Amino acid sequence: MPSLLIIAHGSRRAASNDEVRQLADRVRAQAGTAYDDVETAFLELAEPDIAAGLAALATRGASEIVAFPYFLAAGTHVAQDIPEAIAEFSVTYPAVKVRLTPHLGASATLPAAILGVAG
Amino acid sequence: MPSLLIIAHGSRRAASNDEVRQLADRVRAQAGTAYDDVETAFLELAEPDIAAGLAALATRGASEIVAFPYFLAAGTHVAQDIPEAIAEFSVTYPAVKVRLTPHLGASATLPAAILGVAG
Repeated sequence: MPSLLIIAHGSRRAASNDEVRQLADRVRAQAGTAYDDVETAFLELAEPDIAAGLAALATRGASEIVAFPYFLAAGTHVAQDIPEAIAEFSVTYPAVKVRLTPHLGASATLPAAILGVAG
Repeated sequence: MPSLLIIAHGSRRAASNDEVRQLADRVRAQAGTAYDDVETAFLELAEPDIAAGLAALATRGASEIVAFPYFLAAGTHVAQDIPEAIAEFSVTYPAVKVRLTPHLGASATLPAAILGVAG
């Protein structure tokens, strides 16, 4: 199965970065057989960056990675910066297939998740 | 049934605010009988603000409102600003019950939504 990289913006506030890592822990715990591995990366202000997060998964044996932008809005980060970082990784690891999903704000599964929050 | 208020940060970038409104449209379309009404409000930089969004739902007949912070991190906005805006509304509309949910980043339904994005 593929591995999953959750890509967050990153924050100067360490608690916000930790919150993303804890979310990744919850995703990993619920992943079952859907993903071999779940990792976190940050566009800026926190480690690992996107190339390093992808490389960590590749080093652990991933041959297919689903890259998920944990962003609410389709700004420049989602449209340009993340695809560029993935392209940069792919130059070094051409054998690893990286599939970029829609960002969280546009994901087809989000409305049902929001409808479930009050339950 | 209650009404749902999706509370976003708000952006100077109109497309980001529109993206939240389009998300609310998708939530509304999938709400079925879970919510009588679905509305959007913004903490700052866009209209309506939180008090006005709550008031709009109350004016349309809502007696119970679920307030959902569409935020990834538990910063000051989530911990203080949103509760304060709701408290301000409740002074004017004491008969309307407002229930604040965890923010999106901490919601129990988010991990499953993330696991579904690549499907």
